Amino acid sequence: MGYKEEGKWWVSPGDYDESVTAAYKFPEKIEILDTTLRDGEQEAGIILSKEDKLAIAKKLDAAGVHRIDAGCPATSEEDAEALKEICAAGLNADIYCFVRGVLSDQDLAKECGVDGVIIEIPGSEHMLSGGMRWTPEKAVEAAIAATRHAHELGLKVTYFPSDASRASLDFLVNLLNAILDGGGWMDSIALVDTFGAFSPEGAALYTRALLDRVGKPVEAHFHEDFGLSVATTIAALKEGAFCAHVTVNGIGERAGSCPIEPLVMSLLCLYGQDTGVKTENLIDLAKEVEKRTGKPTPPTKAIVGDRLFGWETGLPVGYWQKSKDINPLIMLPYLYTMTGQNPPHIFIGKKSGGANVALVNERLGLPVVEDKELVKAILDKVKKLSLEVKRDLKDEEYIKIYHEVVG
Amino acid sequence: MGYKEEGKWWVSPGDYDESVTAAYKFPEKIEILDTTLRDGEQEAGIILSKEDKLAIAKKLDAAGVHRIDAGCPATSEEDAEALKEICAAGLNADIYCFVRGVLSDQDLAKECGVDGVIIEIPGSEHMLSGGMRWTPEKAVEAAIAATRHAHELGLKVTYFPSDASRASLDFLVNLLNAILDGGGWMDSIALVDTFGAFSPEGAALYTRALLDRVGKPVEAHFHEDFGLSVATTIAALKEGAFCAHVTVNGIGERAGSCPIEPLVMSLLCLYGQDTGVKTENLIDLAKEVEKRTGKPTPPTKAIVGDRLFGWETGLPVGYWQKSKDINPLIMLPYLYTMTGQNPPHIFIGKKSGGANVALVNERLGLPVVEDKELVKAILDKVKKLSLEVKRDLKDEEYIKIYHEVVG
Repeated sequence: MGYKEEGKWWVSPGDYDESVTAAYKFPEKIEILDTTLRDGEQEAGIILSKEDKLAIAKKLDAAGVHRIDAGCPATSEEDAEALKEICAAGLNADIYCFVRGVLSDQDLAKECGVDGVIIEIPGSEHMLSGGMRWTPEKAVEAAIAATRHAHELGLKVTYFPSDASRASLDFLVNLLNAILDGGGWMDSIALVDTFGAFSPEGAALYTRALLDRVGKPVEAHFHEDFGLSVATTIAALKEGAFCAHVTVNGIGERAGSCPIEPLVMSLLCLYGQDTGVKTENLIDLAKEVEKRTGKPTPPTKAIVGDRLFGWETGLPVGYWQKSKDINPLIMLPYLYTMTGQNPPHIFIGKKSGGANVALVNERLGLPVVEDKELVKAILDKVKKLSLEVKRDLKDEEYIKIYHEVVG
Repeated sequence: MGYKEEGKWWVSPGDYDESVTAAYKFPEKIEILDTTLRDGEQEAGIILSKEDKLAIAKKLDAAGVHRIDAGCPATSEEDAEALKEICAAGLNADIYCFVRGVLSDQDLAKECGVDGVIIEIPGSEHMLSGGMRWTPEKAVEAAIAATRHAHELGLKVTYFPSDASRASLDFLVNLLNAILDGGGWMDSIALVDTFGAFSPEGAALYTRALLDRVGKPVEAHFHEDFGLSVATTIAALKEGAFCAHVTVNGIGERAGSCPIEPLVMSLLCLYGQDTGVKTENLIDLAKEVEKRTGKPTPPTKAIVGDRLFGWETGLPVGYWQKSKDINPLIMLPYLYTMTGQNPPHIFIGKKSGGANVALVNERLGLPVVEDKELVKAILDKVKKLSLEVKRDLKDEEYIKIYHEVVG
């Protein structure tokens, strides 16, 4: 793959320059672990029923997500029931659940039929002491017991030291090695940036250190507090982490989690890394989660917004008019068909020019206006009305102006 | 500055590790150029009147933004008038406007009283040929004439080769050097990623190349199509670009522009780079733009959302209950006072636990419930109702349950 893939994307040659890509250490296969049903649902005000969870899990599976964190069975009977139904649904994705570092949670997880558990115990000194009144020794003991028990039950174990990003590296590495040396079990470690406190460079440093000094596969679990979750996740993956934790639409506590849609699209188009997630399913998935959570997707949210493809301003519409039949990617970073979006819609309003008039006339089946004075007269009226109503015009408003001017 | 600043932020020690920061080449002073009034207004459906523009410009200035791109004077008389009023308002910020590569636009800009112009001509081979039917030679000629004329009028000149990110580096460098060698003038070059097509690594490569091979100061103008605009902007700055182009709330065409709020906060907290923009003004600024554009700010948008600080889920509320009086930053990446937000609000709903009950009782002035069986009975009713209404509970709903259970 390269920076220009006909009918798909056209990005910067710099993204694929050898001087840049030579340093990448992406794993052979990137796994996507979706935690919409657990970390996503933790967002205040988002309540998912059993039916909601099963419906979303099916859409995640259809989109080709590799793993699903389907909830905390200990939260309520409803959540445990949801987990059981998702496990019994015959999905291709591996089903995980989120548990505390206590033995009974592992038993409950096993009972629900999951493939694996994500075992959470704080991983930073201050969150252990401040949030739990635990010593690091107590955390190590609990982790050894819980991870061993889960492993003996035949469950895969992702160890999830929350707030790992804010532990000192030595503390974190020593904690993890103490668990392993003491007989604990981890199939993988989640590098957990609970508070979105990593720069991409910080995330890369910690990923490298865990791979080198603990020697277990690393998963990236990052948040959006500083608007950097997609970037920090990619930074960890290109340093060798094998799995990215995401949510649909980026839902989650505070500013949310790393959103699956821009992550998958960035990896594919900007880095040439195909996760296997079907980009053409992303909008359908986002709409399902929007419906089930009742949380509206912002109209200009990257990849999933309803109003991403379109212009009102004259300058880009002029460029689009001239270039769309040569190659629509001259004026787009990726083709709308990749994500199941519609072709660009030409709006008309205060910032529009002659190209808008021509293309809107075409769309509405109105005769071409050749006379430049008439086009200017249309635009003057359009701009005046648009400024009054403070939005672009509706088709009927434009048609009325057209007939007033052209007759 | 470090990763932990009392009463301000607490991020990852990795962000400030010397092995990481040694490679940074941030400029001594980072300039913020806000283009809400130009590139932001280009978003379809956003219409700003003269009054709107002046009001937003004043808030930008109060927040300490260094430069304001205040519009295209050639778009309409209203826009030219707005520019004149902003220039006459006695702001500290330098006022720029956006112009085409034609002489008359420079004259119009001068007439409006701006400090400088941002002169746009496509910078990629395909956008010149496809979008404008221009040869590179014609672009060079137009650029020489327009930039010289602007300079002779006493205006600062930012040259803005749109779609520069998708030009080959050789094409871009040769184009810019041909303009300079031919007698054109540039105070600085905008590295324009019109379609958000840069990875952070691609952005860094192009920044370095422009600094090395053209030798003019570089400004970063990036977009959010792949959810990476904050990261790409930082990538350019840490390679030596001196100025970041942003919009308030990230408004703009398609997925919008690099949002000022997470950029300024990331630079400060994750990189120790103080732009001078007042973080405590960010919410006020965002609310002004929300009101003037009519475009709602999503409630969980990074830095500016209304519902960033708060939890409904029991696990983090338990941590918060235990740690908030030791140090609220144990459970937050930065303190809400930095951005003028409110302290965390404790919601109660399906995912809540005993700590929610305790803290909500405290907030509502309800007597403490010591009996664990009663707390469980309250929670059972809370979870049931929350699942029925599919949201967290209103205070009156919670109070009713409390009295039903406690009497």
